[in-house]
Amino acid sequence: MWTQRSLMLRSKSKGFHLITAEVEKELKDVIGTVRCGLLHVFIQHTSAALTLNENADETVRQDFESVFNVLVPENQSYYQHNDEGPDDLPAHIKASLLGASVTIPIQDGRLALGTWQGIYLCELRQHGGARKLLITLQGET
Amino acid sequence: MWTQRSLMLRSKSKGFHLITAEVEKELKDVIGTVRCGLLHVFIQHTSAALTLNENADETVRQDFESVFNVLVPENQSYYQHNDEGPDDLPAHIKASLLGASVTIPIQDGRLALGTWQGIYLCELRQHGGARKLLITLQGET
Amino acid sequence: MWTQRSLMLRSKSKGFHLITAEVEKELKDVIGTVRCGLLHVFIQHTSAALTLNENADETVRQDFESVFNVLVPENQSYYQHNDEGPDDLPAHIKASLLGASVTIPIQDGRLALGTWQGIYLCELRQHGGARKLLITLQGET
Repeated sequence: MWTQRSLMLRSKSKGFHLITAEVEKELKDVIGTVRCGLLHVFIQHTSAALTLNENADETVRQDFESVFNVLVPENQSYYQHNDEGPDDLPAHIKASLLGASVTIPIQDGRLALGTWQGIYLCELRQHGGARKLLITLQGET
Repeated sequence: MWTQRSLMLRSKSKGFHLITAEVEKELKDVIGTVRCGLLHVFIQHTSAALTLNENADETVRQDFESVFNVLVPENQSYYQHNDEGPDDLPAHIKASLLGASVTIPIQDGRLALGTWQGIYLCELRQHGGARKLLITLQGET
Repeated sequence: MWTQRSLMLRSKSKGFHLITAEVEKELKDVIGTVRCGLLHVFIQHTSAALTLNENADETVRQDFESVFNVLVPENQSYYQHNDEGPDDLPAHIKASLLGASVTIPIQDGRLALGTWQGIYLCELRQHGGARKLLITLQGET
């Protein structure tokens, strides 16, 4: 069984945002039929990313924002690609550190995430706008 | 063909550990039947990670531990999420830098890793405890 | 439908190189038959990596090279694994930060990359030599 869905996420502020519920909602009519499978969530952008991390305490997501800004600082004199402002090149670097997709097992009709795992949209631009995900679900029914 | 297995890894010290043999052992009755496929290894935690890297020289894994501690240092004044001690927030950040899963091709019944590639469990906490992997194998027999 | 292909990339200079066209060319006889699927591109090395990022402006790839050299500097006194020169250990670390594979959705016979997304070969060594990719394509025809 293969299913593919586009999911347009509304514009979000620069930072890390939990989107597990939005992804699950998009799949709610089909995921229950998959006994064993994989969910691939892919972001079609180069200045935003996806990752899995802590789903409960909001300060984790706030700390992610602080730490990634320290790890890849803006306004370094050696950056060449600055056309779209100081957050432009750092966003591209962070996107490759975090990754453009997550792959999550499906077990008995449900995402087999650990207790504390959630899907983060990593919005790496000040004004990134809406972000498009392409979700591919495959498995054995 | 789809197969899914849980693999509980015994508690390991903070650092990077080769687990290729443990993963292969878990699959030894099925992997030989897959002509062409993919193995997805997923860790159901947010303070441990999986990656592929050098499988021979132990100093690589020791250097990983040193470098990641420099890259994401403990005890930064701006961290908010410190409830579980100084290794708590850095573990979450490192987990997203490294990733929660690896996907490895299967070719003619074997993991198609390069000569020097092995699977690392990245234990990012001082006392992370046992870690649960969910392994999904799919392919053409 | 499953297809697996090896692709040997000719030796490239240390840095980040766009290889989307080379990957697509390797698959040109089969990708058009896949209505919905996934492409897994895997590098069988531990001192080179794959990532998705900006496909247009060459300065992005040049800045990647600069930033990763700052993020994981050579010649740190605490590195133990230096047998193959100062770029040896940093290459392994960068490989795990970036990742050994990318998974890209296939939609209606084409790679469903975003407008600005391309596949980067990240050559992390001064003299890495030829690099071997194993490409696995699966999907519904």
